[in-house]
Amino acid sequence: MAKNDSFKVRAQELSHQTPEYLETLFAVGNGQIGVRAGHPLKVNELYGGNPGSFVNGFFDSEPIQYGEWAYGYAKEHQTIIKLPNLRGVRLQIGDEDSSASEWQVKPIQMTLDLEKGVLDESYKVVTPLGKTFELVMQSFASMTRSELYVCQYQIKNTNFSEPISMTHPLEQKAAIVQTDDPRVASKAHHLRKADYQDYAIWTAENSQRSIAIRVINGEKQLQAEETLTTVFQMKLLEDNQNHETPFNQELADFEVLLQEQQQSYQQFWAASDIQIEGDPVLQKGIRFNLFHLNQGAGRDGRTNFAAKGLTGEGYEGHYFWDTEMYLLPFFIFTNPEIAKALLSYRGKILPQAKQRAQELSQEGALFAWRTIDGNETSAYYPAGTAQVHINADIVYAFQLYERVTGDQAFIETVGSEVVFETAKFWLSYGDLVEKEGKLAFCINGVTGPDEYSALVNNNFYTNKMVQNNLYYAIELAQRYGKYQETISAWQQAADLMYFGYDEQRGITKQDDGFLEQAVWPFETTPAEKYPLLLHYHPMVIYKHQVCKQADTVLAQMLYTGDFSLEQLKKDYDYYEQVTTHDSSLSRSIFSVMASRIGDSEKAYRYFMDTALMDLTDLQKNVVDGIHAANMGGSWLSLIYGFAGLYYDQGLRLANHLPQKIKELKFTLFYQGEPVKISLKDRDIDCQLAETTQLLATKADGGIWIKER
Amino acid sequence: MAKNDSFKVRAQELSHQTPEYLETLFAVGNGQIGVRAGHPLKVNELYGGNPGSFVNGFFDSEPIQYGEWAYGYAKEHQTIIKLPNLRGVRLQIGDEDSSASEWQVKPIQMTLDLEKGVLDESYKVVTPLGKTFELVMQSFASMTRSELYVCQYQIKNTNFSEPISMTHPLEQKAAIVQTDDPRVASKAHHLRKADYQDYAIWTAENSQRSIAIRVINGEKQLQAEETLTTVFQMKLLEDNQNHETPFNQELADFEVLLQEQQQSYQQFWAASDIQIEGDPVLQKGIRFNLFHLNQGAGRDGRTNFAAKGLTGEGYEGHYFWDTEMYLLPFFIFTNPEIAKALLSYRGKILPQAKQRAQELSQEGALFAWRTIDGNETSAYYPAGTAQVHINADIVYAFQLYERVTGDQAFIETVGSEVVFETAKFWLSYGDLVEKEGKLAFCINGVTGPDEYSALVNNNFYTNKMVQNNLYYAIELAQRYGKYQETISAWQQAADLMYFGYDEQRGITKQDDGFLEQAVWPFETTPAEKYPLLLHYHPMVIYKHQVCKQADTVLAQMLYTGDFSLEQLKKDYDYYEQVTTHDSSLSRSIFSVMASRIGDSEKAYRYFMDTALMDLTDLQKNVVDGIHAANMGGSWLSLIYGFAGLYYDQGLRLANHLPQKIKELKFTLFYQGEPVKISLKDRDIDCQLAETTQLLATKADGGIWIKER
Repeated sequence: MAKNDSFKVRAQELSHQTPEYLETLFAVGNGQIGVRAGHPLKVNELYGGNPGSFVNGFFDSEPIQYGEWAYGYAKEHQTIIKLPNLRGVRLQIGDEDSSASEWQVKPIQMTLDLEKGVLDESYKVVTPLGKTFELVMQSFASMTRSELYVCQYQIKNTNFSEPISMTHPLEQKAAIVQTDDPRVASKAHHLRKADYQDYAIWTAENSQRSIAIRVINGEKQLQAEETLTTVFQMKLLEDNQNHETPFNQELADFEVLLQEQQQSYQQFWAASDIQIEGDPVLQKGIRFNLFHLNQGAGRDGRTNFAAKGLTGEGYEGHYFWDTEMYLLPFFIFTNPEIAKALLSYRGKILPQAKQRAQELSQEGALFAWRTIDGNETSAYYPAGTAQVHINADIVYAFQLYERVTGDQAFIETVGSEVVFETAKFWLSYGDLVEKEGKLAFCINGVTGPDEYSALVNNNFYTNKMVQNNLYYAIELAQRYGKYQETISAWQQAADLMYFGYDEQRGITKQDDGFLEQAVWPFETTPAEKYPLLLHYHPMVIYKHQVCKQADTVLAQMLYTGDFSLEQLKKDYDYYEQVTTHDSSLSRSIFSVMASRIGDSEKAYRYFMDTALMDLTDLQKNVVDGIHAANMGGSWLSLIYGFAGLYYDQGLRLANHLPQKIKELKFTLFYQGEPVKISLKDRDIDCQLAETTQLLATKADGGIWIKER
Repeated sequence: MAKNDSFKVRAQELSHQTPEYLETLFAVGNGQIGVRAGHPLKVNELYGGNPGSFVNGFFDSEPIQYGEWAYGYAKEHQTIIKLPNLRGVRLQIGDEDSSASEWQVKPIQMTLDLEKGVLDESYKVVTPLGKTFELVMQSFASMTRSELYVCQYQIKNTNFSEPISMTHPLEQKAAIVQTDDPRVASKAHHLRKADYQDYAIWTAENSQRSIAIRVINGEKQLQAEETLTTVFQMKLLEDNQNHETPFNQELADFEVLLQEQQQSYQQFWAASDIQIEGDPVLQKGIRFNLFHLNQGAGRDGRTNFAAKGLTGEGYEGHYFWDTEMYLLPFFIFTNPEIAKALLSYRGKILPQAKQRAQELSQEGALFAWRTIDGNETSAYYPAGTAQVHINADIVYAFQLYERVTGDQAFIETVGSEVVFETAKFWLSYGDLVEKEGKLAFCINGVTGPDEYSALVNNNFYTNKMVQNNLYYAIELAQRYGKYQETISAWQQAADLMYFGYDEQRGITKQDDGFLEQAVWPFETTPAEKYPLLLHYHPMVIYKHQVCKQADTVLAQMLYTGDFSLEQLKKDYDYYEQVTTHDSSLSRSIFSVMASRIGDSEKAYRYFMDTALMDLTDLQKNVVDGIHAANMGGSWLSLIYGFAGLYYDQGLRLANHLPQKIKELKFTLFYQGEPVKISLKDRDIDCQLAETTQLLATKADGGIWIKER
């Protein structure tokens, strides 16, 4: 396979070709705009599929209807708006009209060029009256001009001489999704369109959010071999913005835009690429994952990374803890500017988080479990608001960002307030109580990452993360001379944090009651009853020892150094046998920890189960969008797992390569410097910049990279 | 106060006179029909108040909208239908029409005659043109003919000579209640009316339930001093019933109906009256409570006792565990036929309970937490379906019924299957696990009676009740030679039932985690923040030591004999200080237990806080209906508390009279025989029937009544 072939994902290489699946996988985006690879002629109901376009942060809202209301419940749903299939065109040849009768359209090829950041397609088209031609398309969402989506159309090999009229009749009806699947959710949104001189403004009726869309070169009479380059300029409008002049930018032509795109991707790959020897399919799959991570991340500080990126409607376009715990490690170590933008979003929604804490009669701030604009939208609080660990997850990410980049200025201006306000929340929500005969700081009535337990006392992961949150708050308070009067209370809470441990079994307790519950009857549960959440009432799931995903094991991945190898192994073995991996966030963590406890072959199996999750449609729901966190998880499996990356006063790396992977090469950025890491067989090496402030030492078969 | 004055409740004696409040208190009912004491001229929007009529079991349904759906959730709301103000009449004198312009109507008197079961009213009416007259009304829902509501109108003292035309234009619009109060709930229902020859059929659009209403003598031209007796015949139609001939009964005239009514109440009071010396207001208040208990109980085996009786729309007309734990003791000991009818309802809905257990992937049967037709309608399962203790509550009531009445035949035909199926559920839902170093039967992930904790492990009340349920199942299985193969498993589960106990503090654990949580910050919670459920998010409430109502104390009331007096006192003192009594089911239980642990004065204070709850509108929501369970609770406070009634191989009674109550006299029925009990000062006496199978012995200052 030639080098750049491993950067090309072709539709015909994939296991199936259903339109909705390809629309997701071949969606192009730039963190602001995402366009599904919809049928090129679909402008109305005539052609199949579920195409559409998304603008990060453009959502509609509606009141949440509760069967039974209670005080403090989240008030409104938020749903990302699916805009029309921008790339879809109406073609007319003489009296024939592709929007009036169905034209035969057969793909010749559909290739996502990961290296250049461009989607190349060509189709063989036959009209009802037998006119044939090829439609060639090249499209991308510009990485350098975030408002632009560009699509070039070319007509080739016609068997007729008339011109083809090409137009973009953008229309949008209310989008209504009805489903019982809680992973998708049922919502409706309604759009109002107002036409202006050379653009239109689309307004969501309830949220009153608006975007302006300008279609440049949307229409043309094309002769054979001619091209039309349509540029869509899309701008999310601020509430107080003057709607009359949303666009004031001069636009470059297609070649310039294309060149910029390629340069941007060149930089991206230089920083982010992971080279894997020994498995070309895996190599391509990993690049596909990294490509989608680059496509989905909001970069403007006002938007974040939706669970499905900008590729589909799954999870309503909401932002979760996925960003901090599954995506930010990749960005922090390879593209810290994007990490900074994503973290800035949390700073921006801090007022909503403060408001939410107040609604819960608590001090400080509590970030929304799921949101677009910062307000809590979780309609089932036991697996929503009760996952208060999101506060500490966000703080963990700020802290990791600082440690890896050294960017204290950002922490001072943005991060520190988040850290202080969340620390205040913990002091308010947690309780200093007598526990097992002594005073302990307990966090009761919460839900940890494992959503198959809910409203428990002392979730291990939560307590571990909160302890870190408090210590970091103390560090920053001391650094910036703030909250001197609170430091001792934070110190006491952190020092007395309760961690449950079953002395008899020698197992870390996921929560106070977990180990005392009956183990789920796995042996009598048929395969078709998974995922359990779709086949069992929550209260039945909750009362069992059964995990949807890594919880204690995730805490131990983040704080591996705090545990003996023996303890890590015992906990791993115990929790592995009660985990269903019904969440796509699970296997990557089990992979990392398998690497770290010395079972590289198991680590490889877990990794391979998910590295190609979307390309192979493992979970059968790629139609709703990519699984962004799982893509970030595949990076974790490789870098935190096989390469053992762990922060410990610097970067520690180790070689945990499984048999099947012969060689692994990648770059990390530490203190602003690139560090090239290579693993081969049992060796590990690193290459520092020519002029470096870093020092790499080899120890215990690994490498420890520190500041001089 | 003359004897029968203490049977007369007069509107002018009450603290306030708002129409909705009087409508509830003066509602008349017979367990099948309930009619609020609405404005006599209200047939449309012209007059105020919120009048209406109810037929037990006549409800509409609609799908429950969940913010986020999950498997096994209850599917439909059910809401009792508010029918028109049956007693409201349209009057016309010449050109004047009471339904077209507002006539002045001033009550002269409004008296509920508890002794006769009749509501007596008279009003002074003035028309816009100055015609004046008195409207005298006498109304009741017939206790002997459950289909009939009777209202007699008389015109007196006219200042004019024309006749008055009186008509009953029954119309009903869709009733829509919108509220955020979870104790009321927001629902809509829609009625369709079809007219037949001399009756109409009203059908609820979604549930497709129908009733036929015949209005007999609804219209007349009345001269002064003349009367019109209108009879409403109302019949809930079975699905397969021929709608053409719902009525085939000959009707008696008013005097006969009235006489029957008085005889019925004579019998009722002979069996049920409680005589209290020393406090006439209390005496009347208690009778008022017993009267409403008699009015609300469904007697046809297909209906039950709604939380608000048939007096209002609160709690949507649903049946809860209130029936078994707060109302059935009264009926079992005074009117066992009504108790039998209420328990028969549980037998009738057993198929729905079996279905529900299946939906929860469990064996046996799980009764709905709230329902009309037997299907679960609780839209918030942590304080609904998770209150699985209702299963054991129902079994407790069957068992008490059998012990007190000796009616084994009913247990064999109806009760035993309920007992077996619930026992199967427990074996399926509970888990035999290792707990505190030994094997224990644990019931995890449930909510006990105290709704300020949810989804806990090993709720003490639940485990205690389930143990009893299992033992009773074994007893019946042995008696009837059934389930021989399951007895040993039931025995093991019951014998190994887990009960949490805090050795250090010497306190019974409400659940595994309760005592390890922080105590609610009562000292910093202002009075206006109660009830807590209206001012704090559930997860904040749940994570604290705070009880809405008696839980452990309720278990100890039911099984007082299983605990040492010292333990009862310690637990009482502990739980009392963390209980808000935000539920109207709380204080009566604390009163009973205060009596039993020797604090009669505290028992009296708790009793007095609630004995007159509705007459004084203590909770400010009498407008939504009476608090039936609290009325039953006042009986418990008196009989289980002050008179110490406790089943122990017979009836044990004791004298715990508080200072303020000089004398207490009442009748209980045991093994079909009346037992007259009198308490005075420190004495207690009983009088058995002349020919008796019972034996009364005095012991420990109390009386023990057993079978010979």
